[in-house]
Amino acid sequence: MPPHRVPGQGGRRFHPSASKGDEATVLTIAKFYVSTEELNRGQVVLKGQQHHHLSRVLRIRRGRVVTVMDGKGLVGLGKVSVIDSKQAIVTIEEVWRADPEFPRLHLYQALTRMKKMDIAVQNAAEIGAVSLTPFGCTRSSPLEALDGAKMGRLRRIAMEASRLSGRPYLMEVREPLPWDGLLDDLARMNIAVYADEESGDRPSSVLDDDSFDDIGLLVGPEGGFADAERDSLAIRGVRAVTLGKTIFRTETAGLVLLAAVKCHYHRL
Amino acid sequence: MPPHRVPGQGGRRFHPSASKGDEATVLTIAKFYVSTEELNRGQVVLKGQQHHHLSRVLRIRRGRVVTVMDGKGLVGLGKVSVIDSKQAIVTIEEVWRADPEFPRLHLYQALTRMKKMDIAVQNAAEIGAVSLTPFGCTRSSPLEALDGAKMGRLRRIAMEASRLSGRPYLMEVREPLPWDGLLDDLARMNIAVYADEESGDRPSSVLDDDSFDDIGLLVGPEGGFADAERDSLAIRGVRAVTLGKTIFRTETAGLVLLAAVKCHYHRL
Repeated sequence: MPPHRVPGQGGRRFHPSASKGDEATVLTIAKFYVSTEELNRGQVVLKGQQHHHLSRVLRIRRGRVVTVMDGKGLVGLGKVSVIDSKQAIVTIEEVWRADPEFPRLHLYQALTRMKKMDIAVQNAAEIGAVSLTPFGCTRSSPLEALDGAKMGRLRRIAMEASRLSGRPYLMEVREPLPWDGLLDDLARMNIAVYADEESGDRPSSVLDDDSFDDIGLLVGPEGGFADAERDSLAIRGVRAVTLGKTIFRTETAGLVLLAAVKCHYHRL
Repeated sequence: MPPHRVPGQGGRRFHPSASKGDEATVLTIAKFYVSTEELNRGQVVLKGQQHHHLSRVLRIRRGRVVTVMDGKGLVGLGKVSVIDSKQAIVTIEEVWRADPEFPRLHLYQALTRMKKMDIAVQNAAEIGAVSLTPFGCTRSSPLEALDGAKMGRLRRIAMEASRLSGRPYLMEVREPLPWDGLLDDLARMNIAVYADEESGDRPSSVLDDDSFDDIGLLVGPEGGFADAERDSLAIRGVRAVTLGKTIFRTETAGLVLLAAVKCHYHRL
């Protein structure tokens, strides 16, 4: 299994100003998401936005190596064999399966203003959450506010952030859950915790077992969970964790909680 | 020394939707920065933007308890004794010194687009950096781009983020440093590391000593440090650390690096 990253080229972001005669011009292997079928077929066609990004933004020419991923762990390295004004064809030269992400971190985010949801989704996708699920509770925004168009927007943000971060696994933005649905869903997790501003143990003391596969991480609404909600969570063994004395914005709290958990499992 | 946070009231952010007849109306202790002199005098006057925030945004009335901080660790709890259309007077009832932040984390951020600098400053202030210093290098934005008005903007963002996070210590946004100035400045640190996308040890293996007081954390430009710059850093003992396989945006990399270091010192 080849390494996730090709040595010496790395996954650095493309930086326009770095190409102007710098002694070490930065080479980025651009990454694109494609279907599993295309990837297995050995040839993928990039159209629309991905074609635009490849040809106009990155100005990639024929012969350049790019990475294509199916978002489910399958990764291919290939060369741009054809490029015209409508599409680019990538001929795959090598395909491998990336190591599964472990532990699988599922972020549950109380629905808040879309501007904050955008950032929460981008942050979670970037640091490596497997999924983000918006949920409703007493002090969240009403779930009706999250229509299909907005879900589409969050999913595009997740894909773009996952892509730019070079993640072989695309973060899923799941359908929003009402409070009861959330409680049911948490039963699928090996362990679940919620970030609390008032009390709680440090994440590292709650996560003392190394065998957790699916970890649920909850970020409540800006006003905090209602007392009855705290009780419901406690009954189901969902424990409060503290992120220290600092109060985080709701869109950053998930990122910091994810970082703390990854750090605990030596993934950061 | 009273606790940093008054039990049962916490430092939750004010959430407008939480006040509409909810069984547990969220009480926030609003926080304001004032001068050390005022704080010691026992009476502080809030004017301008802080008065607007107190009276219009939070709609705080006479008699409400607020927290005032000098941004250097001195914290006071007081009551709004007078409030009119121009100012609010807070009579301090109790003053204490918050525990010093340890270790002292200094973020050095290669200058990038202002939109990203805004986020980097907000993130760093929120998670608890002591200072953020923009610096110039081969692939950064030119330091001339950072004029007085822009520095003022970054400092306002730092203050607002520090305030909302309830930090008794205000993050300092220091004057930008050219490359040589950066190298000199790093000599003040007990240890310094930079986030690298290509290689490096995990932060926890580099930071194995528990006695570091001042830790310098460098986030390079989006194209990465030039080879000569890497060499300069290596000669000065500034080591590369990796944040795992994921590639972070430059404005998030600092936050994640700060989180990893705080986590290592059990501060997260």
